Amino acid sequence: MQKRLLNHINFPKDLRELNPNELLQLAKELREFIIDIVATKEGHLGASLGVVELTLALHYVFNTPKDQLIWDVGHQAYGHKILTGRRDNFHTNRQKGGISGFPNREESEYDAFGVGHSSTSISAALGMAIASQLKGEDKQHIAVIGDASIASGMAFEGLNHAGVTNANLLVILNDNAIGIDPSVGALKQYLTNVKKGKEKQDNIFEALNFDYSGPIDGHDLPLLISELERLKSVKGPKFLHVITTKGKGLKQAEDDQVKYHAPGKFDSVTGDILPKQEEIQAPKFQDVFGHTIVELAKMNKSIVGITPAMPTGSSLKYMMEQIPERAFDVGIAEQHAVTLAAGMATQGLTVFCNIYSTFLQRAYDQVIHDVALQNLPVIFCLDRAGLVGEDGATHHGVFDLAYLRCIPNMIIYAPRNEIELRNIMYTAQLGLDYPIAIRYPRGRGSVIDWKQPFSEVKIGEGIQLKKGKKLAVLSVGAIASNVEEAISRCEVNDTISHYDMRFIKPLDEKLLHEIFKTYTEIITIEDGVISGGFGSAILEFAAFNGYSISIKTLGIPDVFIEHASVKQQYQSVGIDIDSLTMLFSSILLRLK
Amino acid sequence: MQKRLLNHINFPKDLRELNPNELLQLAKELREFIIDIVATKEGHLGASLGVVELTLALHYVFNTPKDQLIWDVGHQAYGHKILTGRRDNFHTNRQKGGISGFPNREESEYDAFGVGHSSTSISAALGMAIASQLKGEDKQHIAVIGDASIASGMAFEGLNHAGVTNANLLVILNDNAIGIDPSVGALKQYLTNVKKGKEKQDNIFEALNFDYSGPIDGHDLPLLISELERLKSVKGPKFLHVITTKGKGLKQAEDDQVKYHAPGKFDSVTGDILPKQEEIQAPKFQDVFGHTIVELAKMNKSIVGITPAMPTGSSLKYMMEQIPERAFDVGIAEQHAVTLAAGMATQGLTVFCNIYSTFLQRAYDQVIHDVALQNLPVIFCLDRAGLVGEDGATHHGVFDLAYLRCIPNMIIYAPRNEIELRNIMYTAQLGLDYPIAIRYPRGRGSVIDWKQPFSEVKIGEGIQLKKGKKLAVLSVGAIASNVEEAISRCEVNDTISHYDMRFIKPLDEKLLHEIFKTYTEIITIEDGVISGGFGSAILEFAAFNGYSISIKTLGIPDVFIEHASVKQQYQSVGIDIDSLTMLFSSILLRLK
Repeated sequence: MQKRLLNHINFPKDLRELNPNELLQLAKELREFIIDIVATKEGHLGASLGVVELTLALHYVFNTPKDQLIWDVGHQAYGHKILTGRRDNFHTNRQKGGISGFPNREESEYDAFGVGHSSTSISAALGMAIASQLKGEDKQHIAVIGDASIASGMAFEGLNHAGVTNANLLVILNDNAIGIDPSVGALKQYLTNVKKGKEKQDNIFEALNFDYSGPIDGHDLPLLISELERLKSVKGPKFLHVITTKGKGLKQAEDDQVKYHAPGKFDSVTGDILPKQEEIQAPKFQDVFGHTIVELAKMNKSIVGITPAMPTGSSLKYMMEQIPERAFDVGIAEQHAVTLAAGMATQGLTVFCNIYSTFLQRAYDQVIHDVALQNLPVIFCLDRAGLVGEDGATHHGVFDLAYLRCIPNMIIYAPRNEIELRNIMYTAQLGLDYPIAIRYPRGRGSVIDWKQPFSEVKIGEGIQLKKGKKLAVLSVGAIASNVEEAISRCEVNDTISHYDMRFIKPLDEKLLHEIFKTYTEIITIEDGVISGGFGSAILEFAAFNGYSISIKTLGIPDVFIEHASVKQQYQSVGIDIDSLTMLFSSILLRLK
Repeated sequence: MQKRLLNHINFPKDLRELNPNELLQLAKELREFIIDIVATKEGHLGASLGVVELTLALHYVFNTPKDQLIWDVGHQAYGHKILTGRRDNFHTNRQKGGISGFPNREESEYDAFGVGHSSTSISAALGMAIASQLKGEDKQHIAVIGDASIASGMAFEGLNHAGVTNANLLVILNDNAIGIDPSVGALKQYLTNVKKGKEKQDNIFEALNFDYSGPIDGHDLPLLISELERLKSVKGPKFLHVITTKGKGLKQAEDDQVKYHAPGKFDSVTGDILPKQEEIQAPKFQDVFGHTIVELAKMNKSIVGITPAMPTGSSLKYMMEQIPERAFDVGIAEQHAVTLAAGMATQGLTVFCNIYSTFLQRAYDQVIHDVALQNLPVIFCLDRAGLVGEDGATHHGVFDLAYLRCIPNMIIYAPRNEIELRNIMYTAQLGLDYPIAIRYPRGRGSVIDWKQPFSEVKIGEGIQLKKGKKLAVLSVGAIASNVEEAISRCEVNDTISHYDMRFIKPLDEKLLHEIFKTYTEIITIEDGVISGGFGSAILEFAAFNGYSISIKTLGIPDVFIEHASVKQQYQSVGIDIDSLTMLFSSILLRLK
């Protein structure tokens, strides 16, 4: 058996000792290593397989970590992590206490910048390059950015600035024509034309003052090395266009790039995805959204759907397949997505704009300035709200209640389960007087038989799920199931009432007055930040109305929550079933 | 005396009756009308003078309001407003109860979309165009966008999407090489090259699949009309490049385009800006920032300054003049500005990133994901925080405390006056462990002799400004002066204590415990939204610590505040001196 080179590569300095043949061997081993670990430990597969050669070439040519390398987005960086001191920890990827699935400045000096959300690398690398200039340091600054990421406006802003500097910046476009789903947009078409060598080709990057080279084959390691060596001595902003294949080296991953973006467990030899347990499960919230919008759009011809680059993740793909003329993937362009929705809404269309909660942060001003201020009844569906698990701190959707609640005109609703998601979608498309944000979590709901006849939700109305005499628990959203279970575990004498307030805004003030007049203690529970969130709204209500009973607000405390399973994250902030059971039990003892 | 044509133009249909010579006459009159009114009523001058011919040509050729016209940004739209039913109200521009300084959908059916913040027009117009397609309507959709606005990433996102549609969209680039300050960036250089007719010119807009024409002279009315007529029958996305001169027709405005962007009162014949009253005044907060950063940067070589397109408005221009290598205007690119700052901060630079509070909404995700999550000690200086007066609802900086407070790691400070602004800037550049947001209002402070020796601010420490026995008033920021004056007007017996909490985050918990143990009533006052703001933080503190005394939270209620003077806006929300005096008096009566 051949000695494995990878075992001796602890840091990039080790691989710089290798000869060309050994580098090729290392590429093969690195690819196998990624496949072997991700096959059992799960994670992002295709992106890192596509940049194995590029990863090796970069660390071979450049003097990392002094030279600064940014991966955009960061799920390309598995090979980078393995080659920079984290080979033996790589099996802990995305697990609690393990390494992060994205570059992380705290984790390694080789991770120059954390990139969980896309399209930030050019700005960050330019900032570093300008700093090096000011400090008189001779360094290289490299941003590796995917073709889906570079289509985002923020990347353009970075290019636009960099082009008028003489900063020592190398932008490497990793062009594989796909993000999580296939890339879209005019820039993608342009890049396709470049690759086809079409005649009369305007060069966007040269027009922006970059020294452009490429496109070159990103799997040709010697070519990559020689081109990077050449670029190392070119001053000023440089742009290298590299063509890669996502999933390179695993046939299935190359053939079905969407599925193998993050395939879950698979057979590392055959590539077959392992069957999941076959028990009947409640659906994913995203699929409830995806199927329901199709159902509604067939009845209501004014409905359109928008997703910024998440057809699969949001399940808008069902509508894109069945009603393509009314379903739009606009690429990684949240700002555009929101204002496009606003423009459509001015014309009387019923617009469902589906954006992950964490990515709506990218379009905050557009929500305020283009939608809410003009009071256009856009229907925002915010997927992945709350704690998201293994993707970690970059991806939680925990700020939405706080940052949306302060915006006038907004309605904010958190469905407790799949049926409520369906019904609020149904209600919203009947026509509301205001924009609405419907936020729901990653993963599965709780109702297997979810496809019930539609029923209208009364805006601003909360409901009582369980009656009790002394303690009122007020929850919003799917966290209600933890509350229900915790109550059932500890209660004996109908002491605890449970309300699903449903609307974070407008609050059900009638119901709240009843509650504040009835109970001696109130607990609020949400899967969002405590500062400024739902609980804070209840405190504001109480203060405004002069109620002075005890209110305890549970939710996400004022820290960033690291990667772990959702269940572990719930535990860490005390809103899992066990923690709630203990809390309720202690209160029940006191209230006896 | 010649009969004035403009008097008979009530709506665009009237001007469509005119012959070519009359149109030229109307252009002259429209320009004079704008100058005459703005000379006495103030407002934005240069931008609208630059598009007089374009405005006439658009309404002449297109069938507005059925055809949809969006002005980006909206301060170009004065001529448009005058020609669309608002001539006789134009003198009320930007005043309380008068017309808005920006297009406003509620104001007129000719205002297809409100654009106070820039770069939204392409997305909005595309949304309208797609809606027309779906509805089978034959309409034109026109976005007029300045060259400074089109450099923003969001505009690129719109172009990128539009280029792969066959939507009936016309993007008109109003290229005058200036926003409020001169345009910057590679795209600006590219446009300059186009204008110079440089050989081998890559065409960015053709590369993005637009049917490009131009550049043409935007003051040649017959040419504009014929070109627009031609484009009207071209299907799909079209791009017309128009060259204009900002301030066209008023010599001083053409010669000093920055000053005449919004010159205040001036002589409508000579163009001379009228001298303001000469009494000694406290400085503008922006100038305290601008002069102080220069002072600090001379001492601390690691300091850099960043502004997204607001060198004049933020007064970073002083540093750009004196230390150009460390002061950066990155154009209308807030997202880039923030992540550039983060990149620089990773290299140990001390970065002051100055962004208007309202525009930081454009970079919310970057603050969370790139700065706070990585805990990079970027120093944000948020100008125009609070109510901003005549610019109105699009421009208030009232959400910042709510949307920043929920972000872990952030320090948030609101200086009460110029000296405190200087001292917190001094303190921040000494080196903090966290990012900080320093937010201060538009306009002048209260201390004439502001340039005092620097003194370090203790992070998280509030102060007592006045002692009293029963009622504690807690304020943050410059609104303290209203509180002080109101207290002085109504108090006799040392009943009211006044605290400047200074830090919205972290709260001075030690001081708060003292306060909550001492007083029977508390009032919080801020010039930000009540929902989730500073007052809400105090409520959270009280709930967490089990204090149950009465707390009243004053600030901006949950509505958008229309244009008016700042004083009128304060009155409308009850935080002006008179309202506070009445409130305190009524409480004093009760507490007697």
